[in-house]
Parts: sequence; C-alpha cells; structure tokens
Amino acid sequence: MGNENSYNPHISVDCVVFGFDGEKLKVLLTERTIEERTELTNNKKMPGSVIFNDEDLDDAASRVLNELTGLKNIYLSQFKSFGNPSRTSNPRDIHWLEKTTRLKIGRIVTVPYVALIKIDRKIVLNAADTSVNWYDVNEIAHMHLAFDHNEIIRNGLEHIRHRLDLEPHLLFELLPRKFTISQLRALYDVVNQTRSDVRNFQKKVAQMTYLVMLEEVEEGVPHRAARLYKYKRKNP
Amino acid sequence: MGNENSYNPHISVDCVVFGFDGEKLKVLLTERTIEERTELTNNKKMPGSVIFNDEDLDDAASRVLNELTGLKNIYLSQFKSFGNPSRTSNPRDIHWLEKTTRLKIGRIVTVPYVALIKIDRKIVLNAADTSVNWYDVNEIAHMHLAFDHNEIIRNGLEHIRHRLDLEPHLLFELLPRKFTISQLRALYDVVNQTRSDVRNFQKKVAQMTYLVMLEEVEEGVPHRAARLYKYKRKNP
Repeated sequence: MGNENSYNPHISVDCVVFGFDGEKLKVLLTERTIEERTELTNNKKMPGSVIFNDEDLDDAASRVLNELTGLKNIYLSQFKSFGNPSRTSNPRDIHWLEKTTRLKIGRIVTVPYVALIKIDRKIVLNAADTSVNWYDVNEIAHMHLAFDHNEIIRNGLEHIRHRLDLEPHLLFELLPRKFTISQLRALYDVVNQTRSDVRNFQKKVAQMTYLVMLEEVEEGVPHRAARLYKYKRKNP
Repeated sequence: MGNENSYNPHISVDCVVFGFDGEKLKVLLTERTIEERTELTNNKKMPGSVIFNDEDLDDAASRVLNELTGLKNIYLSQFKSFGNPSRTSNPRDIHWLEKTTRLKIGRIVTVPYVALIKIDRKIVLNAADTSVNWYDVNEIAHMHLAFDHNEIIRNGLEHIRHRLDLEPHLLFELLPRKFTISQLRALYDVVNQTRSDVRNFQKKVAQMTYLVMLEEVEEGVPHRAARLYKYKRKNP
C-alpha cells in the first residue's frame, strides 16, 4: 500500500446555523481559543467537527448541533462540499485543528449543512472552552472567520434562499411557535433581500392555507398588540 | 496524535454522466475487472476516483472525465455527498478499491457530480482495463451496480431535473449542436418524465428566444426531413 501519507485527508461537517430574532437573520458562531492569540482576528468559526469513524455525514451534523446547543430534531440541509487544498493553508488553523482533534491533519474536505433553529429555543452550551453567539449575517460579511467559513456561509445563504423558494414552509422553522404577520414579513424580506409592501404581503398571506389565526394577541409590546398566528403542518 | 488509524477515511468523486441519444436518457458506466469474477453481477460502476493530494473536488471530477473520455469543458454540477460507513461494506468493493488505488481503505466519502455530454462527441478511452458504455437510465434501475451507485444515480437524476427547472438552457448541453424540435421535445420529456403534446410544445418553443432556426434540414432520414435549430448562447 504505497503513498499512504500523501493521501491522508480528513472529512468534517460544518453547520451554518441560521436564526431569526424578529428583525435580523443571524448565524451562530463559536469562538476558538488559540494559544498564541496576540491578534483578535480570525478566531471565530462555524460549529463543526471531524466525522467519527462509524458516523454518517447527516449524523455528524446532528451531533455537532446537539453537543453545542442541546437541541435535537433540527432542520438540516446539506449543500456543496468544500475541498480546496488551500483551505487549510493558514498555520494557525492547522495548529488549532491538530490540537483539538489530536490528529495529524494534511487537508480537510468539509461537507457543509444549513441548520434552521428557533432563536428563542434555549441553547445549552456543553463545550467549556468555546463561547457561542449569534451574529447578524450582514455583520459576518465584514468579519474574517477561520478557514473559508466566510465563503461557506455565503453559499449557505444562497442555498437556503433556494430551498425556501421550493419549500416556503421552511420559514416556520425560524419563527417562534406563535408569531405575528409582521414578524413573518420581516423574516421573508430578510431572507430574500426584499422590502415587501404591507398590503401586497397580506395578499400573499391570504394564500398561505397552512397559517392558522389564533385567538391570542402579542403580550407586553409597547404598540397595539398584533394577532398571533401559528403554522399548521400538513398531515403526512 | 492518537486514533490515527480509526480516522482514516478517503475521499472520492463520482460522476453521473448523462447523454441523450435522440430517444433515451443514458448514463455512462465503466466495467470493473474483478479477479474472482465468477458472478457477472455487481461489476459496473460510475466513473470516479480517489482525489489526489493537491486536487480540489471540481478538478478531480474534470480529471476523471477527461481521462475516461478525452473530453474537456464538460458541464459539471456537484450534489449531495454520500458518506454512510456501510457504503463500503461489500468485501468485493473493498478488494477492488485497494487493488486499484493501492491504498488501505477504511471508508470512502464520495462527492458526486452530474456531467452532461453530447453523446455524439467522440469518446476516447484511455484506461486499458475498463470498458465504457452507455446504459438507459431506466435499465440501470434494474442493474446492481457497485457500492451505492444506484442510489447516487437516482439522486443525480433528481438533481439535474431540478437544475434544468432553474436553467432550462442546460438541455442544450445534451443535444447535438444542430437538432430538431422533436429531438428537443423527446429530451425534455425523458428528463421530466412527461409526454408533451406536440402543439403545446410548439408554444413553449416559441418562447425560447435563445433558439435559432437554421437554413438547414436533417439529412439521411427515412421520413420528411425536419428543420434544424441551434442554441444561441447569451452574450456574457
């Protein structure tokens, strides 16, 4: 068996976790602890992990999210893998990888996923040496993330826009269980980079047969409390 | 560096190469030479390769197609990766892999691509020990291919249907440079599993502003020679 060392790539999964805070589309990033941390740049990354030996790709992505947030049954959608050999050309990235994985890393091909979670779900952090925070997706465009994570997040956003075109009900993975029509419109606009007219959006809503108007209104808001709605899943 | 052996996956690319013979949608398969070949089942597979050390995924897919067919500049589109550990559970698959790659293979994650080629382009075979042939995509559903290649081809077909919805001009990657409207209709129907009415399809064609009618007709056909068309690429 020749050439073993030259063909020793590793495979990871990375998760672009989207959440919606009622106003902005956010992405969950973790902070890396790097020993020789004299600069503050380049120290945030998406949640991810090298896949375990007997683990399928989807299972690895679910594990990463569960370990990080305590959540299960999260919507996940795989998109185009990243395997440019130069994605691990930064020695600090390699140093961090080898320290955390205890593997000799030549290169890493990563299989990325988009995850959609309700931002109001309580996130339980398990990893002691990381801190996890939500960042505005527009803000991230100006941050310098580890590896090629900026590019992966951009592709993840395109991917989810595209999925939402095909399956509009995925929007409800991001909204709280009970929501107002203005929250729905704000989310729709932030994902599609549009500015919907209130009246036209009402027409669109009238066609959403899967929306159920509740007998409840918002609580504790400074303006006139708006009607709450919920999403009615189709029967299988 | 612990656990090195348990984390020793390899990464491959596999290509679902689609072609259209004027009537049927076909897929290019290669025949494996397996030493202990007493059975004739399980000996066909998609063209693919373990990625080289310094090679990006797209480059590996292009290389595979070029080595196999002599063709360059082929339309390629990556879709969802396959990484179930059980995909290499058949000892014959592992035996073949280790013999051809000269690598000790634990598991293989494969990154699949759809390729679209004009079936009339001359295919030059370079690999001496393989034979390459076109198979009807419906016929493949009843064949038992190596690894999980049946499943990958099914997913590839879904993927390309979906791409064609978004980019209808990709159909012309499969047609000869000059084609008739009935060829275009046959291809449209075979990809979308529809049976278009001739008159309705003419209406659809009338809206395809990128079709150019030529001053030529078919040659050497037993029926009345039909008008030829070509596809006019948009200026960039």
